[in-house]
Amino acid sequence: MADLSKLLSPNSVAIVGATSNFDVIRGRIVRTVLHHGFAGTVYLVSRSENEIAGHRTYPSIAALPHPVDLALMLVPAAAVCDVLEDVAKAGAGAAMIFASGFSEEGGEGEVRQQRVRDIAERYDIVVCGPNAEGFADFRTGLAATFSPVMDGLDPPIPHDMPERGRIAVIAQSGAIGFAFADTALARRAPVATVLSTGNEACVDLATYLAHGLEASGADVYLLFIETLRRPDVFLKAAERALQLGKPIIVVKVGRSAASRRAAESHTGALAGAYEGYHAAFRKHGVIEADDIDEAVDMAVAFSRHLARLPRGRRVGIFTASGGGGGWVADACADAGLEVPLLDAATRTRIDALLPSYGSSDNPVDGTAQAVRFEGYAKFAELLVASDSIDCAVVILSARTAVTLSKEIDALLELGKTAGKPVLFWSYTQPIGRSAEIMAMARLPMMTSLRNMVRSIAEMTDYAALRASAADQSDSGGVAIDDGTRVAVADALASGGRTLCEYEAREVLARYGVPFGEAILATTAAEAGAAAERFGCAVAMKVQSPGIAHKTDADGVRLNVVGDAAASAAFDEICRAARARAPDCDLRGVLVQPMAARGTEIILGVSRDETFGHLLMAGWGGTHVEVLKDVTLALVPLDRGEAERLLRRLKVWRVLEGYRGEPAADTDALVDLIVRVSHFVHDHADIVGELDVNPVLVHPKGQGLTVVDALLVKRERSCGGRKGA
Amino acid sequence: MADLSKLLSPNSVAIVGATSNFDVIRGRIVRTVLHHGFAGTVYLVSRSENEIAGHRTYPSIAALPHPVDLALMLVPAAAVCDVLEDVAKAGAGAAMIFASGFSEEGGEGEVRQQRVRDIAERYDIVVCGPNAEGFADFRTGLAATFSPVMDGLDPPIPHDMPERGRIAVIAQSGAIGFAFADTALARRAPVATVLSTGNEACVDLATYLAHGLEASGADVYLLFIETLRRPDVFLKAAERALQLGKPIIVVKVGRSAASRRAAESHTGALAGAYEGYHAAFRKHGVIEADDIDEAVDMAVAFSRHLARLPRGRRVGIFTASGGGGGWVADACADAGLEVPLLDAATRTRIDALLPSYGSSDNPVDGTAQAVRFEGYAKFAELLVASDSIDCAVVILSARTAVTLSKEIDALLELGKTAGKPVLFWSYTQPIGRSAEIMAMARLPMMTSLRNMVRSIAEMTDYAALRASAADQSDSGGVAIDDGTRVAVADALASGGRTLCEYEAREVLARYGVPFGEAILATTAAEAGAAAERFGCAVAMKVQSPGIAHKTDADGVRLNVVGDAAASAAFDEICRAARARAPDCDLRGVLVQPMAARGTEIILGVSRDETFGHLLMAGWGGTHVEVLKDVTLALVPLDRGEAERLLRRLKVWRVLEGYRGEPAADTDALVDLIVRVSHFVHDHADIVGELDVNPVLVHPKGQGLTVVDALLVKRERSCGGRKGA
Repeated sequence: MADLSKLLSPNSVAIVGATSNFDVIRGRIVRTVLHHGFAGTVYLVSRSENEIAGHRTYPSIAALPHPVDLALMLVPAAAVCDVLEDVAKAGAGAAMIFASGFSEEGGEGEVRQQRVRDIAERYDIVVCGPNAEGFADFRTGLAATFSPVMDGLDPPIPHDMPERGRIAVIAQSGAIGFAFADTALARRAPVATVLSTGNEACVDLATYLAHGLEASGADVYLLFIETLRRPDVFLKAAERALQLGKPIIVVKVGRSAASRRAAESHTGALAGAYEGYHAAFRKHGVIEADDIDEAVDMAVAFSRHLARLPRGRRVGIFTASGGGGGWVADACADAGLEVPLLDAATRTRIDALLPSYGSSDNPVDGTAQAVRFEGYAKFAELLVASDSIDCAVVILSARTAVTLSKEIDALLELGKTAGKPVLFWSYTQPIGRSAEIMAMARLPMMTSLRNMVRSIAEMTDYAALRASAADQSDSGGVAIDDGTRVAVADALASGGRTLCEYEAREVLARYGVPFGEAILATTAAEAGAAAERFGCAVAMKVQSPGIAHKTDADGVRLNVVGDAAASAAFDEICRAARARAPDCDLRGVLVQPMAARGTEIILGVSRDETFGHLLMAGWGGTHVEVLKDVTLALVPLDRGEAERLLRRLKVWRVLEGYRGEPAADTDALVDLIVRVSHFVHDHADIVGELDVNPVLVHPKGQGLTVVDALLVKRERSCGGRKGA
Repeated sequence: MADLSKLLSPNSVAIVGATSNFDVIRGRIVRTVLHHGFAGTVYLVSRSENEIAGHRTYPSIAALPHPVDLALMLVPAAAVCDVLEDVAKAGAGAAMIFASGFSEEGGEGEVRQQRVRDIAERYDIVVCGPNAEGFADFRTGLAATFSPVMDGLDPPIPHDMPERGRIAVIAQSGAIGFAFADTALARRAPVATVLSTGNEACVDLATYLAHGLEASGADVYLLFIETLRRPDVFLKAAERALQLGKPIIVVKVGRSAASRRAAESHTGALAGAYEGYHAAFRKHGVIEADDIDEAVDMAVAFSRHLARLPRGRRVGIFTASGGGGGWVADACADAGLEVPLLDAATRTRIDALLPSYGSSDNPVDGTAQAVRFEGYAKFAELLVASDSIDCAVVILSARTAVTLSKEIDALLELGKTAGKPVLFWSYTQPIGRSAEIMAMARLPMMTSLRNMVRSIAEMTDYAALRASAADQSDSGGVAIDDGTRVAVADALASGGRTLCEYEAREVLARYGVPFGEAILATTAAEAGAAAERFGCAVAMKVQSPGIAHKTDADGVRLNVVGDAAASAAFDEICRAARARAPDCDLRGVLVQPMAARGTEIILGVSRDETFGHLLMAGWGGTHVEVLKDVTLALVPLDRGEAERLLRRLKVWRVLEGYRGEPAADTDALVDLIVRVSHFVHDHADIVGELDVNPVLVHPKGQGLTVVDALLVKRERSCGGRKGA
């Protein structure tokens, strides 16, 4: 992989195909580059014009005095390949292709895109696009794009911005990427860069992200994703981002059928199933947003408070408007935050500043009068200093800047020194001066209440996830020696495509999955003997790779007692199976003691087209599809992840002991999930789907019973044998 | 009740306590009134100044040449009562009191507020407030408020606005009320009036709403509610609003404990439990919002599309940006809307206007080129004309107005003639000119995707609810003759506070609630005989008003068969009851046949402090508190409402027949809910709580079994006897 810095941090840029006709897209890019104050060198290349807007031009890229870092290619699709070759030969380190007419159109476009890839590889040149809307770097002043957002942006970039908390946008839709920037700029947020990735012929979004994280140009990432072409790179980058404490906020589209249609015609790629994305995002704390303002408001909150993320969910609220205080308190509760009464010491300090009709309850009703005398910052400081809260919210009307203007110094000090996040909610539309002051103070001000409380909740969760990711005590996997792993791989390779329960038990048991005793009976006499041996009521289940749904095939008998009954049941089961599925490859009937009662859990593993295997855990039983109490995670999971997975379920409350019922053996369930997930991970090339369902979780200390299991291999793995 | 029009549509206004010191609140009100162009007469009353800002003043309200319609009272709390009396004596029709220091402070303030009420009644003068932020009428130009929103508003009001779709804001927080207006004005929406109701000493929010509906000044209502002082008036107004097709959008705060604390200190009133409000809102199609922009965006959507609400959930999407189309499609799916493929005829018409790389799939990828040639309106028209969709969404970047400016006429025509709603989503921040054009065309443009799709969904639901409210076929109640009603009232009055199952059965049965046979056994022999008589397995349950939880008291035996077993069970049950609760007033043991299996439903009725009785229906069984699949409605319910109630539950899918199970007898369940709700409604003065739980709903045609029932009377109703 070539170095992306020539593309993303160029010192010199050539605009190939420049024109003075600013009405066409090519010209708009030229005008936009020239309008902003790029610190490096810009060369204009034009075959037909000697001068554009007072700048001399060169007839070809080969005619430039020096090779450039980046060539902006303003040429139509048909000319792209030839020009790209010229550009590469002229020694450019990177090229950005704006033209559409590539894989998103299929056919000839597909061929063209492959040629771009070939040329890029041959000459080791970094190529962005094609079908891209360009790039803007607010630090260096390079705005290489036809986005109307950058067009007449005033003041022109570069913008001053703080070192810490810069925001980078990487988007698979240039329109939306620059819309993120537009909204962030309206909030005076420190946007560092915006990049439209286009068709990603050579470099994909995840690679840009990975590069950005190490290049340290930004601390907060805003992504717009239709599809991830390199999910492995994305997962590594997301993990690294969490390590570095650089939050990623993502909008993922392509969740609905209509949206997938749109994505396909947009960038020529299929959007994978959303569930895998969702699980992948959650694994590394990537935060999903549903709206532009929501994504941007969260990015701004993180940007301002990266060094002081909340350590708990307790919010202190200050307001001079009674109505607003109650509303924010409700919104906090909706977002899972707490609004506790303040400690006595803090209340005394606040009361000393309030008139008699104020209130130091939380929400603190500060009264307009006290705000006029003391300002907002003073009260925010008092809240932040309290041990009762983890985060402070200040409610104001930023429609005037009278009070804010008077207390600028105090606000700047608050922004610098506050040890906990402070967020401002303006219930009116802020005027420019108010927004300016808050930006100077580096404190986020929002008009959306929902976005504000969600930002607080997400900052809290993110901080907690970082802490738990750093705490490795629960991260152990499963200790499987190589011999066992190979033996299991062999066993998996040898059988047919479907492993029914008695076979699946065997391989899973090698990974420590606990199964009770069971006997595969192949004759009625064996079945009778097995029942006798167990000496208790038994369950009997047909075993055949051709029968996935045993109950539907009348292949199950429960609570069978004694030799005679078991022999008879064996015959019935086999008769039914042969009647229903004459070619079903009947292996016998599995006889096992009836399981003790327990909370019913469903576990399943399936293969996601993007992220590989996903483990699903949920509340089992007859109503699983109505309850929809299921959740997914990428495999493998460590103990900490497995427990977090379970805690997301409603059934967790049942497992914890409910209405006087004893708590269930969640340790055993966590252990089971970890073992199953490692089994699948180790044999990912052969396992297709795996059901471990139902699982009955017994009271604490009594473990669990895996009642059934079924493994279906991946299609291509059947029959063959992969080397270890 | 005095006529509110003197308050809300005054021809003349006196400002009592006017001052030229515009730094204080009193002066800001004067300046704001004078700044805007009120069409009526304004008199300034000041004891200390002869002239204010070039206007002559009067020394007292008595000195005015004519009585005024409305007096704005800018005097401190301590002076309010005396001045109010002067104002009333001078013949003013209404007064608005801005001062705080009344019931929100308790004590002396409480007394003062009572005096205000007394004076208002004595002189029949309409009083708004106290503790109010005032009023603004954008039609007449009266801005009687110290809200900073109205302060320097430019251009001054009155504003021109269309006759249809005007928005009225009524708020229990002036700050939030004017914030609604501020946000709506930023969207150039037709805001007609804003009213801050303050402490509502004399006139409450519901009364203002009821007046507004008939006065026809506005078609869309935006409410901010902390508490409803007259829930009965509100319910009538909400019903009337639905009849008139005037949507109400409400923000209700006071849902969390901290918020209730805030509300209490804000306007001195207790916010009732939220559940009742939620049920009341839903009954008459009142739409709840959680954020200012959400409330306002929905109001604007309704305002623009009142005459063409969507008749279905199918959305057609047009975009020139591929990324945006997919995102809107996802958001539609999230909001329960559909994005179907378009019909062939429409596709042909659209394809004729697109270049080859466009797509007439839905989302329609219109390409920037086609938009440049044809404009947005053209495509919106084609979508609206299609039978495949009920609503059209156009995606654009309103950061430039180039295209919109070129097609103003087409947009105006679209706004006038479109037979279906068209909504515009701008993914960038709209510039003023774009917003202006869309406002001229009376088409809503939003930047929040979520608000846009929610607006569409709410418009659809609202239209459907209006249609079903107009269709009276399911609105029948329960035909109970007066004799029965009186007999039930007598029976209810005669017993103790708690009616256990055998008693509750009797009264409920009179309302047609179906109970199977049951025999109250008072001796072991009777129990045995009852079991014999039924000749099947029976359930036996202790009957005692002192034992609410029979199972906990070991007072239940199931599947008891035969005389001997039943006799023994009787003795065990009674022994256990006496051991656990020696003073429990043991009435006997109810013997009844074991119920057939069925889907378990829980019904319950409780009294809400604001809205009276609420009926709760939900998925029953041991996990009811984990499932939380319950929903509430005000009583009584007609059949249509009962069915809508059930359809909101997850268990509805189970009732409808699931995984091959037969559909349950939902008709019987609907009937049960209607009967129970009418029973409670008819005897609301005596019924406190009622449990009808569990209810086992059997397959269609086989009815249901009410397994248990318990009625607890209201405390004050006990022992006494109310006249019929």
